[in-house]
Amino acid sequence: MSTWGDYFRVTTYGESHCRSVGCIVDGCPPGMALTEDDIQPQMTRRRPGQSALTTPRNEKDRVEIQSGTECGYTLGTPIAMIVRNEDQRPKDYGGSTMDLYPRPSHADYTYLEKYGVKASSGGGRSSARETIGRVAAGAIAEKYLKLAHNVEIVSFVSSVGNEHLFPPSAEHPSYSTNPEFLKLIETIDRETVDKFAPVRCPSTEASERMTKVIETFRDNHDSIGGTVMCVIRNVPIGLGEPAFDKLEAKLGHAMMSIPATKGFEIGSGFGGCEVPGSIHNDPFVAAPEVSENKPGAGIANKSRLTTSSNNSGGIQGGISNGATIYFRTAFKPPATIGQAQTTTTYALEEGILEAKGRHDPCVVPRAVPIVEAMAALVVMDALLAQKAREASRSLLPPLPKGLPIKPETSK
Amino acid sequence: MSTWGDYFRVTTYGESHCRSVGCIVDGCPPGMALTEDDIQPQMTRRRPGQSALTTPRNEKDRVEIQSGTECGYTLGTPIAMIVRNEDQRPKDYGGSTMDLYPRPSHADYTYLEKYGVKASSGGGRSSARETIGRVAAGAIAEKYLKLAHNVEIVSFVSSVGNEHLFPPSAEHPSYSTNPEFLKLIETIDRETVDKFAPVRCPSTEASERMTKVIETFRDNHDSIGGTVMCVIRNVPIGLGEPAFDKLEAKLGHAMMSIPATKGFEIGSGFGGCEVPGSIHNDPFVAAPEVSENKPGAGIANKSRLTTSSNNSGGIQGGISNGATIYFRTAFKPPATIGQAQTTTTYALEEGILEAKGRHDPCVVPRAVPIVEAMAALVVMDALLAQKAREASRSLLPPLPKGLPIKPETSK
Amino acid sequence: MSTWGDYFRVTTYGESHCRSVGCIVDGCPPGMALTEDDIQPQMTRRRPGQSALTTPRNEKDRVEIQSGTECGYTLGTPIAMIVRNEDQRPKDYGGSTMDLYPRPSHADYTYLEKYGVKASSGGGRSSARETIGRVAAGAIAEKYLKLAHNVEIVSFVSSVGNEHLFPPSAEHPSYSTNPEFLKLIETIDRETVDKFAPVRCPSTEASERMTKVIETFRDNHDSIGGTVMCVIRNVPIGLGEPAFDKLEAKLGHAMMSIPATKGFEIGSGFGGCEVPGSIHNDPFVAAPEVSENKPGAGIANKSRLTTSSNNSGGIQGGISNGATIYFRTAFKPPATIGQAQTTTTYALEEGILEAKGRHDPCVVPRAVPIVEAMAALVVMDALLAQKAREASRSLLPPLPKGLPIKPETSK
Amino acid sequence: MSTWGDYFRVTTYGESHCRSVGCIVDGCPPGMALTEDDIQPQMTRRRPGQSALTTPRNEKDRVEIQSGTECGYTLGTPIAMIVRNEDQRPKDYGGSTMDLYPRPSHADYTYLEKYGVKASSGGGRSSARETIGRVAAGAIAEKYLKLAHNVEIVSFVSSVGNEHLFPPSAEHPSYSTNPEFLKLIETIDRETVDKFAPVRCPSTEASERMTKVIETFRDNHDSIGGTVMCVIRNVPIGLGEPAFDKLEAKLGHAMMSIPATKGFEIGSGFGGCEVPGSIHNDPFVAAPEVSENKPGAGIANKSRLTTSSNNSGGIQGGISNGATIYFRTAFKPPATIGQAQTTTTYALEEGILEAKGRHDPCVVPRAVPIVEAMAALVVMDALLAQKAREASRSLLPPLPKGLPIKPETSK
Repeated sequence: MSTWGDYFRVTTYGESHCRSVGCIVDGCPPGMALTEDDIQPQMTRRRPGQSALTTPRNEKDRVEIQSGTECGYTLGTPIAMIVRNEDQRPKDYGGSTMDLYPRPSHADYTYLEKYGVKASSGGGRSSARETIGRVAAGAIAEKYLKLAHNVEIVSFVSSVGNEHLFPPSAEHPSYSTNPEFLKLIETIDRETVDKFAPVRCPSTEASERMTKVIETFRDNHDSIGGTVMCVIRNVPIGLGEPAFDKLEAKLGHAMMSIPATKGFEIGSGFGGCEVPGSIHNDPFVAAPEVSENKPGAGIANKSRLTTSSNNSGGIQGGISNGATIYFRTAFKPPATIGQAQTTTTYALEEGILEAKGRHDPCVVPRAVPIVEAMAALVVMDALLAQKAREASRSLLPPLPKGLPIKPETSK
Repeated sequence: MSTWGDYFRVTTYGESHCRSVGCIVDGCPPGMALTEDDIQPQMTRRRPGQSALTTPRNEKDRVEIQSGTECGYTLGTPIAMIVRNEDQRPKDYGGSTMDLYPRPSHADYTYLEKYGVKASSGGGRSSARETIGRVAAGAIAEKYLKLAHNVEIVSFVSSVGNEHLFPPSAEHPSYSTNPEFLKLIETIDRETVDKFAPVRCPSTEASERMTKVIETFRDNHDSIGGTVMCVIRNVPIGLGEPAFDKLEAKLGHAMMSIPATKGFEIGSGFGGCEVPGSIHNDPFVAAPEVSENKPGAGIANKSRLTTSSNNSGGIQGGISNGATIYFRTAFKPPATIGQAQTTTTYALEEGILEAKGRHDPCVVPRAVPIVEAMAALVVMDALLAQKAREASRSLLPPLPKGLPIKPETSK
Repeated sequence: MSTWGDYFRVTTYGESHCRSVGCIVDGCPPGMALTEDDIQPQMTRRRPGQSALTTPRNEKDRVEIQSGTECGYTLGTPIAMIVRNEDQRPKDYGGSTMDLYPRPSHADYTYLEKYGVKASSGGGRSSARETIGRVAAGAIAEKYLKLAHNVEIVSFVSSVGNEHLFPPSAEHPSYSTNPEFLKLIETIDRETVDKFAPVRCPSTEASERMTKVIETFRDNHDSIGGTVMCVIRNVPIGLGEPAFDKLEAKLGHAMMSIPATKGFEIGSGFGGCEVPGSIHNDPFVAAPEVSENKPGAGIANKSRLTTSSNNSGGIQGGISNGATIYFRTAFKPPATIGQAQTTTTYALEEGILEAKGRHDPCVVPRAVPIVEAMAALVVMDALLAQKAREASRSLLPPLPKGLPIKPETSK
Repeated sequence: MSTWGDYFRVTTYGESHCRSVGCIVDGCPPGMALTEDDIQPQMTRRRPGQSALTTPRNEKDRVEIQSGTECGYTLGTPIAMIVRNEDQRPKDYGGSTMDLYPRPSHADYTYLEKYGVKASSGGGRSSARETIGRVAAGAIAEKYLKLAHNVEIVSFVSSVGNEHLFPPSAEHPSYSTNPEFLKLIETIDRETVDKFAPVRCPSTEASERMTKVIETFRDNHDSIGGTVMCVIRNVPIGLGEPAFDKLEAKLGHAMMSIPATKGFEIGSGFGGCEVPGSIHNDPFVAAPEVSENKPGAGIANKSRLTTSSNNSGGIQGGISNGATIYFRTAFKPPATIGQAQTTTTYALEEGILEAKGRHDPCVVPRAVPIVEAMAALVVMDALLAQKAREASRSLLPPLPKGLPIKPETSK
């Protein structure tokens, strides 16, 4: 089903060549200032055609709010948003060749087998345009998270091909122990990331290395993958549900649902498997300054402890601990390449497939706002779940003193 | 919420020290032979205390079916299963020390902040015992998948610390292009994996390397992480839902919901970011022999094409393509270590926490059946979703000939 | 949440004065012929302004499919539909008076308290326009049900005020034992119902009685309620889920979610409480002619038994038994009346509220297509659930002979 | 699926003859005092064998909490509860006769067709024992509602056959306008109801009339239906979700999911169709005394208005308005009767079915605690949904003054 979230519920629709794409957002808190101006910037960041390195198709992608707001404020009712498809002509994508061949590593063949019909765009909902509804919905979640808890979500490109912003080393098999990395994630913002257009890797040196990789693959009519790091700051403690809906599990689900993703890691990640437990454990320390009754800081309503390292990536036992959350998502090389490919037609005849036009040799820069949007949807949903719990808890009598389940938290 | 799945819905319950742990499985097809004997083997494989390398606690973990079967067959109604906790004494885990300290990188602190109460076991549902219900439910799903489609699910340890079964190399940055790996995943079975106890890595040489790593960390009262590879064979084409519930997204969610996981990758994974698109794309070839009307092989009901490589990991556009699915999950080093740790009490006093008793230096061998269980739950749910679609589709009139959405699939 | 259904999932959006109202339908089987022409007729039947007895506002309500179809066939992906609001000016409904008063028995006050904001239309989503998305989605479900199983859904007005089509009597406290009623529900169709416009009660005599009641209330600037009967023929046996999602429970939920409803009864209903069990029980008889392997007739795939009476209303134990389903829904008198009403302002001042313009004295005729739409959504969802079960069951080996759970169904 | 609720989620399991019946409750607020003593009383009230008028089977029905509590307080994790089945022998219910015949108006036949297997108890989950899990879960919800908002839920028998506590009259076609009824619902409590055992109708005179009806039907080996009224006091304003999940729609769903129900009405109900709008509308009046910041009284946090009549039954536009909620549920005559019935075997042979033993001639007295339990589950879920909204709203900046969507609520 094309639905995400239990509390902040997003349902998306649309293929490449239908009238419009969009979504319905249900569960947005009422009374929040919201207009298209809050949503359009991320739509525009997602848009292709922003540089010579990305695909030249120039889509306008203007979002229109259909419902759920009045006088510039949310009503608490479903917010429908649509974005017109300017190119609604079915069958103009690959022409007759695409009618004959399922494109290798695209969704053409699996969609056909799944549904028994063949959308003109080939992969139907497996199109990049499907992510428009996600980015629109994510922008609303982000606005709320910013207003309510000053949550900041920033993504950037962390590798292209084998060029890394923080290459793994014997000393730091995971960036989670690298002081330079830990410093960066506390300050990086979107404005800085966008300065490093078109690669969106916040380092002049690394950005240049990556640009060269992309240019080489572009010139070879080939493609290359990469990774996107995402950082979430100021997440209240206590978000994430035990067992199946741990916060990192929902983030993993969300990221792996973005087209072309092949991997996800949180905190120390795969490299963390090589770090001894005695180093990997994050010791507790008293929080530098305890904010007094900061709203949303867990049922105890103030986080008195923090950790002196952050291999956990801000999540322990599936629940946010108040530290900065960070995770990385791997994107494969785009399947559409200019090179001729030997493959087989629907009618079982081997042949040569040649893609027309110019294609994006590397999608990771454009993936940045999509990763941010999905991260926002995950945190928003977890926040509303925890708010429901806290609010329901707050109506109960306090626990009796001396109960083992009531810990002594002050001297 | 402690619920997994939309069609084959599993709800688990239980902490370490309550009366029992278990689950309710709703949506199991009726008329399937099922007794405790189908479930117990995986429960036993999950059980700790199986070797000198793992924790010595000897839990019996006998599963009891409470409902949903009669005369050894499923009724189609909810199947409740319970496993008694033999150790129901709250507060015996860490004694008084654990009352003072939240254990570093455990869930003690985040659970307390989330719920405002402190379960005697510390992390409450974040216990390894919570996975018992999953393994029981997974065994039922596995039985069905085997009967219906001969689906085979096999996990094994692929790395411990920096010792890998298939170390990444310049030639093969991802195992997805490694012929040795591709050969192994077509034949590996659980019996073979278990022969390599206690490490469960199906290679004498690698297994020995890994055992040494574990022994070293055990002797140092430290711990180390590792990765688990999982292979799923004979999955019908067409499973997985577009947009948010792509098959790899559900697998990622499922794996990242297992305690202590830090990463997930499907097919070529993170290494695949370094493979050029021209190599990464999986060309189509005619299927070696087209099985005639094999049940469950997609709406078209026969998969006529397959791929000559498998960087996709058996999933394209979020939908299974009939090839073998494989993915890898990263587990961090266990947080409970014998070494003394400097950390801070609930009352904000810095001090030294020393864990009592012996602890498991590496959890990946025991994670093997848990990974298999969660994989089974994901595939089962996706299968039922697609069966509903196929069945509903089959009642409609056939598509008219010559329609662009009706591809010509035969000469 | 504004979502209905688990398998055929409908999410609606829209208030009275926003840009558009509509819905997303997810889970529609692929390969079904579908254009706006399949949907518009029920939209038009729902539209106000069809006679002197109903409200004169003339809304056009043209539905536009945004996605999910190509070449006139469904793709299996989400189908978004929108209907423009022609009247998008907030605050023109009741003018300044409505700003001061919450209208008695409207949703103005409860919406304000629930959301903390006051939509210009007063009741926000509690508007009759919210039902547009339901009717559009219901039309798609109906088309499928008709194609797949020849399911026929027909509603008609069964009472207005105290004028009944089948008045309860000592002999027949419930219409469920009345032969005339039982005959009518086997043949009634929409064309016949619409011949009795504007009341939509298929009896010249009763229709005239009801018209007089409505005219009297209209002339008194007052309003009156009524009931709508709904009949569903050719529902396959086996639909409905045990425990919470019994078929009648979902129908009850669906009907009670239509604005202005106050009651629901299935089969013998409230009157059935007065019928002795010995009469109320529906004896089994051999089915007059067993259709050979009619698709969708339950896992056994042919219904060999039927009942000689139908007090059950086609549902037993929450599951359809193949007989005609019928149920009745009660609608209160419309809350908007021309008479002046003494009530209290938001600012706690007592005063007189006078509604402007002309208002609908009785909504039941217009409720007819809405009831049909919600009935279609319920049956569709239950059908897909059962199809998933049947399809998954069909892949298992047959039950051994002689098992108590395998009944002997033939001599 | 056997799951109820989105926030307070109950999953039940169990047939008549399996090891146990029970449920898992997920989403209970943490830190609430809870032991079996809070749950057992309603289990006992539900239990059969309480008088000569009800079935003599003596089940003990002791509930055991398996998880989710420690030291007598909820942990916020899933609460599993089980009740042993003392009678686990399959096939002892109806003996060989029941193997031949599907019982008329039972679920035997529909279950068989749905699942393709025949549970020994005939109707499988359609058994009265399935309601045990509901009553256990409902008792937890009730405890919370009482502690948090002093919510009181009381059910009683309102009719048996054609003997009514408040018979409809020309003056009062609905009890909603009857002052005697309105007075009763403000004060009635469970202790009073139980004094009128075994009929549970709180009126000596009506109770005697009803007893006679039941005795007559018992002596004739026949059965008779009846209705149960349910009253919910002190529900906070603002509960219930627009569109599909209106509070009355969820109540209707819940009640119609109880075995043997045939109808549901809220507030004025079916009789309300005959009341003119000018009388049916509930005028607003200033609340007699505005409680200062009563928790849970809507986002505005105090309900300043109330209504001078209550035809709405405490719900307007699908949302609670703070007034007492009341609704009525119709139960059909029990299908199991002592009289011989002419019907047809599974093998299509007409014959005579005679039920063994003694059977309950009227189930409505026993339905009282089940109705209360389901009512509690509905209100609890709606409360948590609204708490989530209020809590999320409370973190946003206040609305600017003078905005049309910010009503002036004070002079």
